Amino acid sequence: MEVGLIGLGNMGSGMAKSLLHAGHRVTVYNRTRTRAEALTADGAIVAASVADACRPGAVLTMLADDAAVEAAVFANDGILASLSRGGIHVSCSTISVALSDRLAIEHSRAGQHFVSAPVFGRPDAAENARLAVVAAGEKTVVDRCKPLFEALGPKLLVIGEKPSLANVVKLSGNFLIATVLESLGEAIAFARKSGVDASALLDFLTSTLFNAPVFKTYGGLIVEGKHEPAGFALPLGLKDVRLVLQAAELRSVPMPFASLLRDRFITAIARGNEKSDWSVIARVAAEDAGLPAAKTAGA
Amino acid sequence: MEVGLIGLGNMGSGMAKSLLHAGHRVTVYNRTRTRAEALTADGAIVAASVADACRPGAVLTMLADDAAVEAAVFANDGILASLSRGGIHVSCSTISVALSDRLAIEHSRAGQHFVSAPVFGRPDAAENARLAVVAAGEKTVVDRCKPLFEALGPKLLVIGEKPSLANVVKLSGNFLIATVLESLGEAIAFARKSGVDASALLDFLTSTLFNAPVFKTYGGLIVEGKHEPAGFALPLGLKDVRLVLQAAELRSVPMPFASLLRDRFITAIARGNEKSDWSVIARVAAEDAGLPAAKTAGA
Amino acid sequence: MEVGLIGLGNMGSGMAKSLLHAGHRVTVYNRTRTRAEALTADGAIVAASVADACRPGAVLTMLADDAAVEAAVFANDGILASLSRGGIHVSCSTISVALSDRLAIEHSRAGQHFVSAPVFGRPDAAENARLAVVAAGEKTVVDRCKPLFEALGPKLLVIGEKPSLANVVKLSGNFLIATVLESLGEAIAFARKSGVDASALLDFLTSTLFNAPVFKTYGGLIVEGKHEPAGFALPLGLKDVRLVLQAAELRSVPMPFASLLRDRFITAIARGNEKSDWSVIARVAAEDAGLPAAKTAGA
Amino acid sequence: MEVGLIGLGNMGSGMAKSLLHAGHRVTVYNRTRTRAEALTADGAIVAASVADACRPGAVLTMLADDAAVEAAVFANDGILASLSRGGIHVSCSTISVALSDRLAIEHSRAGQHFVSAPVFGRPDAAENARLAVVAAGEKTVVDRCKPLFEALGPKLLVIGEKPSLANVVKLSGNFLIATVLESLGEAIAFARKSGVDASALLDFLTSTLFNAPVFKTYGGLIVEGKHEPAGFALPLGLKDVRLVLQAAELRSVPMPFASLLRDRFITAIARGNEKSDWSVIARVAAEDAGLPAAKTAGA
Repeated sequence: MEVGLIGLGNMGSGMAKSLLHAGHRVTVYNRTRTRAEALTADGAIVAASVADACRPGAVLTMLADDAAVEAAVFANDGILASLSRGGIHVSCSTISVALSDRLAIEHSRAGQHFVSAPVFGRPDAAENARLAVVAAGEKTVVDRCKPLFEALGPKLLVIGEKPSLANVVKLSGNFLIATVLESLGEAIAFARKSGVDASALLDFLTSTLFNAPVFKTYGGLIVEGKHEPAGFALPLGLKDVRLVLQAAELRSVPMPFASLLRDRFITAIARGNEKSDWSVIARVAAEDAGLPAAKTAGA
Repeated sequence: MEVGLIGLGNMGSGMAKSLLHAGHRVTVYNRTRTRAEALTADGAIVAASVADACRPGAVLTMLADDAAVEAAVFANDGILASLSRGGIHVSCSTISVALSDRLAIEHSRAGQHFVSAPVFGRPDAAENARLAVVAAGEKTVVDRCKPLFEALGPKLLVIGEKPSLANVVKLSGNFLIATVLESLGEAIAFARKSGVDASALLDFLTSTLFNAPVFKTYGGLIVEGKHEPAGFALPLGLKDVRLVLQAAELRSVPMPFASLLRDRFITAIARGNEKSDWSVIARVAAEDAGLPAAKTAGA
Repeated sequence: MEVGLIGLGNMGSGMAKSLLHAGHRVTVYNRTRTRAEALTADGAIVAASVADACRPGAVLTMLADDAAVEAAVFANDGILASLSRGGIHVSCSTISVALSDRLAIEHSRAGQHFVSAPVFGRPDAAENARLAVVAAGEKTVVDRCKPLFEALGPKLLVIGEKPSLANVVKLSGNFLIATVLESLGEAIAFARKSGVDASALLDFLTSTLFNAPVFKTYGGLIVEGKHEPAGFALPLGLKDVRLVLQAAELRSVPMPFASLLRDRFITAIARGNEKSDWSVIARVAAEDAGLPAAKTAGA
Repeated sequence: MEVGLIGLGNMGSGMAKSLLHAGHRVTVYNRTRTRAEALTADGAIVAASVADACRPGAVLTMLADDAAVEAAVFANDGILASLSRGGIHVSCSTISVALSDRLAIEHSRAGQHFVSAPVFGRPDAAENARLAVVAAGEKTVVDRCKPLFEALGPKLLVIGEKPSLANVVKLSGNFLIATVLESLGEAIAFARKSGVDASALLDFLTSTLFNAPVFKTYGGLIVEGKHEPAGFALPLGLKDVRLVLQAAELRSVPMPFASLLRDRFITAIARGNEKSDWSVIARVAAEDAGLPAAKTAGA
């Protein structure tokens, strides 16, 4: 189908490729135009403006945060103003539950449809059609978008008709990943100071009870102390935990693990790890145990 | 090989069966003799005393806690007094690092060998040779015990020559499981109060990033609010977190997640869940979010 | 001196009286006009609008939160638009550091002066000239305001030229009070469950090391379980802790006690104490220890 | 009255002097005899053994911890064996609730009396009769000991007939002091990073709501970053928090602030502050905020 795509960071560019490879006709827009032009080789049409990218009647956004989405949607010549009546805005960014609720209201007022469809996966998964998508919105509209979701990856969860439900799922998932970082950080600091070979410990655990990608991937980084370059940057981790805490507070849900994670992320930033991967909170755990700070060449 | 086995709770009885089925000659002892006699059908020889169970020259203990192991080992007619010089004591219980260190010293003084070999798995895994074993001790002695470990399950990690290293691994593993309970408890409370179908959320997560037994098993219990009957009782969970914290304190390792878990377990006990499964801390998370306390028939 | 005062809640009305009693000429404004008229007996002049209240050239605001202050300042006919060049806005509300910074910039752009002067004390202190004032702003401007501050209470701290410094002090103080609530809540739950007479414990502590008003006042409420009616309502306590956490995050300062307090306040709200005094977090501590929930008639 | 005193550290020696100055006849014992001899100038009689110190029929112990008290009481020639029937053992040390309960039972079995009477105050208060004493035990026995307590300081709380109640009070008090350390550490780190003069902040707070010795004394140390030499050493602070947590766990009382304090104390030790004052946890708070680690010459 025909679709616009706004936001061509590492994730957005990968998604554009997966959509194009699946045969969709994709009009791409990015503030820095060169990133859009780089996709012409894959068949993308370059839009000159947000309005251009809205012309297909369905537009995906994959932007950094609430502020970027608000700017793209609510600007004078933004999505809200540009999309046709009956048009669809599919937001794939990790944004707040509150903004998702607001987008649903505003698009509805404008006679447009809003689908929230955040994704799980890293840039290489985006590019290779291996993302997991969580979608929420009016059933018929979500159904119309399914060819797009299928182009992004084999795994789709439709969680309801209220768009922000998808954001709750995304935030819950990121919260759980963050807890794994902290858990492993503490366990590995404990093991190392006790004289246990952290690598052997991790191999054992991830071949038994904890046989899941999140433990293997992040466990490996933590055991090696390899938090640079960032796959998912520390400030983004802090942002996501903040979104979890804000959304949970609105519902009066205390989340003490999330609170603790927030403190860890802030501490990691204060101690100079701002450019590191969010798994660097394991370095904070190690330092708090008096282990050597720099851990870049194996355990 | 010939071996004694002391402690025939659900775990110990299962292990006896697996050892017998693998062809070992097992002399079993339990304070309440009927549990020993129940195993004669599987070929077990019933010992009249701890000393009897030590006669084979190698003896496994699978007891509830430090106090039970201390009683079995240090009593006048206990293992230390009864085992021959050159004999082997294999401790499979989840005990403290400090007691493991002490057992290593005392058995060595008595000219005996000590192997620490705690296991991961529940009673049905014990009975069906599906435990994962973590062993530590003198290499030659651990090698001699391998036929026993292989009879208990396919997965063996030998983590070093110092017995208590195996206890550190066991405690690290149980700590990680406990963090999963709390993480899921918070995430599911957040999802439920936000209107998300917790069951769909769990299915999605455990078919993607969190595709591991620990998330599936406990996630299911938490979504259903099914914490009774206890698979692993709440007070045992508290005990294990306490052992983690004590061992970590000895090495000056702060473990804030473990501290928070300890508070959760204590709160769960104070609120009347003493007989429930340790996953009941998710009920505390739900109650703290103002969700209905009783959750026994689905979400 | 001549001054306007906007915001006549319990605190603002009390402050108006203290200013009037000290001989200042006070023009008062409140959205609900009856609260303004009630002060005419004390000599207040009733303003018909925010603009009217700005006419004296100096105006105090004592409003509920950031949103109320933003509305009063940035509305079309708000303070920013109404105050003369060279006029002074003195903000006494507990607002965010970020808003304080923004007010400083905007008033400066408009050729006006901004002084931040939050106060410590409850309504009766406001009415009886017993508030403690923390002020920050240009030195000469703060000096000009001193007669107003002296009318509010005997205790004044001028903390610097940057207005938001005063907000940091106010938030730090409220954070410290909140930690006292939690500390006492835990200590008293521990004491009660151990069989200690909580009242005797408190008397002893507050006549020795903890001989300070904050321990006496709140300790008494906690021992009696008297959290209604609210002196300072629970949601306001949550708001203040949130402001502390936000301001601290901007500076990359982790505050684990504040995080824990936030969870306690949210839990207290989720469990139905929204209308209670913020000291009700001690009830949460008691309930988590399995003590009887309702504690309204003595310990 | 005639009394023995075992344990002549800084606290015990000071108490000996206060007792002697009040006219009591004091027989002192210390493992290192020179500390006993140093008190002869004040009129003390030097005991050659624990048994000698028990001869007066009433004996005070002021020892470092549970282990030291257990050794003094339960040794073959210890207090239990040496004290006459009807004799009184007054334990002033900060020991566990569990040991206090055990001492009550054992002394009772031996036909002796046990009074628990821990004290608040530092060495200079001990020497100058300014301690605060919390006593618990049989009423008639406590009454007989009152002349001793009055010699130690003007403030006495008799909290009940069960000796360990006094230990609960002592532990509650030390817990509250520790929370003040952490609260001030966080608040001051926040203030400093926000550009607030920490010294002015402290002066203001301690002249208003927080007008208590504990805030003034420790606040001063924290603002100056002066944690050496130790008035009360960090490992003793950790010990006391551990005793609080253990006693509270026995009663199923979760104490999240205490848990957090425990982690802070462990972190402070792991980072090399073992010889510092327990207020050094404020240095951890500062470091976690990215403030310079070394703070020995003012803010």
